[in-house]
Amino acid sequence: MNKTILAEIISVGTELLLGEIIDTNAAFLAEKLRDKGIFVYRKSTVGDNILRLTTAIKEAMQRADLIIIGGGLGPTEDDMTREAIASVVNEKPFIDDQLFENLRQMFVARGREMTENNHKQAWLIESAIALPNPVGTAAGWFVTFDEKMIVALPGPPHELKKMWHEQVESRLPISDQFIYHRTIHTAGIGESDLAARIGQFTNMESPGIGTYARNSGVDVRIAAVAPSIEQAKAIADSVIMEIEAILAPWIFGYDDETLVSAIMKQLTAAGQTFSCVESVTGGNLAAEITDCPGISSCFKGSLTAYTNDVKIRAGVAEELIREHGVVSEQVVLAMAETARKMFNADWGLATTGVAGPDGLEGKKPGTAWIAVVGPNLEWSQLVDWPGSRQMVKNRICRIVFQSFFKLLKEAKCR
Amino acid sequence: MNKTILAEIISVGTELLLGEIIDTNAAFLAEKLRDKGIFVYRKSTVGDNILRLTTAIKEAMQRADLIIIGGGLGPTEDDMTREAIASVVNEKPFIDDQLFENLRQMFVARGREMTENNHKQAWLIESAIALPNPVGTAAGWFVTFDEKMIVALPGPPHELKKMWHEQVESRLPISDQFIYHRTIHTAGIGESDLAARIGQFTNMESPGIGTYARNSGVDVRIAAVAPSIEQAKAIADSVIMEIEAILAPWIFGYDDETLVSAIMKQLTAAGQTFSCVESVTGGNLAAEITDCPGISSCFKGSLTAYTNDVKIRAGVAEELIREHGVVSEQVVLAMAETARKMFNADWGLATTGVAGPDGLEGKKPGTAWIAVVGPNLEWSQLVDWPGSRQMVKNRICRIVFQSFFKLLKEAKCR
Repeated sequence: MNKTILAEIISVGTELLLGEIIDTNAAFLAEKLRDKGIFVYRKSTVGDNILRLTTAIKEAMQRADLIIIGGGLGPTEDDMTREAIASVVNEKPFIDDQLFENLRQMFVARGREMTENNHKQAWLIESAIALPNPVGTAAGWFVTFDEKMIVALPGPPHELKKMWHEQVESRLPISDQFIYHRTIHTAGIGESDLAARIGQFTNMESPGIGTYARNSGVDVRIAAVAPSIEQAKAIADSVIMEIEAILAPWIFGYDDETLVSAIMKQLTAAGQTFSCVESVTGGNLAAEITDCPGISSCFKGSLTAYTNDVKIRAGVAEELIREHGVVSEQVVLAMAETARKMFNADWGLATTGVAGPDGLEGKKPGTAWIAVVGPNLEWSQLVDWPGSRQMVKNRICRIVFQSFFKLLKEAKCR
Repeated sequence: MNKTILAEIISVGTELLLGEIIDTNAAFLAEKLRDKGIFVYRKSTVGDNILRLTTAIKEAMQRADLIIIGGGLGPTEDDMTREAIASVVNEKPFIDDQLFENLRQMFVARGREMTENNHKQAWLIESAIALPNPVGTAAGWFVTFDEKMIVALPGPPHELKKMWHEQVESRLPISDQFIYHRTIHTAGIGESDLAARIGQFTNMESPGIGTYARNSGVDVRIAAVAPSIEQAKAIADSVIMEIEAILAPWIFGYDDETLVSAIMKQLTAAGQTFSCVESVTGGNLAAEITDCPGISSCFKGSLTAYTNDVKIRAGVAEELIREHGVVSEQVVLAMAETARKMFNADWGLATTGVAGPDGLEGKKPGTAWIAVVGPNLEWSQLVDWPGSRQMVKNRICRIVFQSFFKLLKEAKCR
């Protein structure tokens, strides 16, 4: 008989309910729990309020075996997680000598004064063991109570992640079930069209198949649960090959692969390099490209040319800008060619357009020209998709990467 | 007697519980509700499961007046939000002729085939009015039931945001309470130190004062609630000036201001410009700089020089790289000077280092040199802070912007 372990995640912080920050911890924890074969039943966010937090913990304990709480371990009075857990398990917190000494030394090492506020960061209760925090003042708690586990971790993402790996993972209950999953990334096909094409598989009980519309395109996720990872993989693999055959024209990668890593694969196989001259995307192309480990094997660099003067100095003919405007097909092609020459690369990508909020040359925010120039190839496209400044930049990057990937694929087939 | 309106946000999607995507909708909705004087009591995330979603909606309705549901309106069988709401209000969905016709025309316009799957995107129930979706196939629902309101919006963030502004905001109940809030951004002081310095204010009942550790530094948020926005502002203002006086050395901005917008303010006041040559940050400096509206008034551009060859062509002396290594103080200063010359700017910023996962020149990932060079000023610093590739890039950007802001502030005072 298999034991399914159910978990809930509680994020604590009024700022999360005010929309001031985006909760990245919950996604991290959910992914890590999934990889351990632990199912997340629900995620909740509550404010810095002892009563609401206590209620949320009690409710979660009725549904789940394991409660992970992120946040509320800071030194200030609105950090209430310790108080809430102590109340749920009905124990009285005390100052732990070892935690207090660690804390004192940390303040000495940083040359900062330890305030009265910080004392509660040395609290502990009988049912808890302390989880040391090597990068901050907030120690975590690992509580075992009433056959349930409660884990409390500090809110800053780099502290939470480090402590998860070093302190929490090894203490988790071991699931008798394993999840095998694979995500297929596609671009250039709509979700309902894709779903209809693989309709004969999406109704199956196992493996479970879901489709998700993402920025990069539509993802298909295939997941199977079984008593061993090998069995789970076998169940998933039985349909993965069939789905691949159907979606082949649109697939660009799997799992952690991105459009950029797919582009890198193609370029390194061909022994080619690329570079960019960016205007409207303002460095976003380069930033996303350089997020990809190993990209220096084929990426030479990017020029963000934010004034006409910089574009002209780099090699774009002044007459082109004067005659056609800076947001024009002629200029974007000249920019892509400049990228090739300036960086001595095989392929050049370029963007020019209006990010907003103001217009330019009588053109609306969201209007942009993009280009890809390579050996024996010149390609350009007009993009017209209004939105906020960040949305415009991100979408143009998406279209550039999708187009470049497609052009590389086609070039290979010729 | 004031009526406080309480809201809850429910995000729907198994992918959110699997940690595959980060929930940005919930933060957007929370912020918008706050601005309307509506208090968010709790946020929850549930999977694509009719029973769990129905339970979550029922629970939320016991605590709140207004339930906003994001996601689960897609065309596929695991999109269950319509079914769940219909079950909660005990009504039977029917196909709405107008919605069906809109949907049909949208598919015609896109040259795509409408599948059987899509039919449920034309569903409606008696208690709901349809909220048109101008950018996607999933219409929203606005349900009035049992003196409560339930709003269902599609999950893709650009659809949800557009429909919120165009369809939902004007239909929300009007709160008799108003929240005035102001956020003070600081850099260079730790949270507990800051909290101790303003300790006499943080215990007050009203305004409420919270401190939050962010990437950019520590934020102080002052919020007051009153029957009019003027009264709320007066309550908040009473302490804001005193807090400002205490924290003056560390304050760089307020509310929507960022380190980059604070830098822009200083530079435009001085009539100066800036530019970058980036290696380890790989375009992230430029991308973050160009997120700031109006930045073209002082930002000329950035070169992402991802190979030594590109750095040398741009103007960095080859001997410096050979003698000191590319991750060195000598090279980063030469890069910053190159930024000034190449872009004809007053200030040049530069970064060179190891983003990882592999080391370089015997140096570990996270090791980097950063520099700021300006009129009569040369500044550089060694950074050594290991982490993932993205973390390394982001942190180096943070330190560059903090340092540049501080140097500009000091230059002004001299």
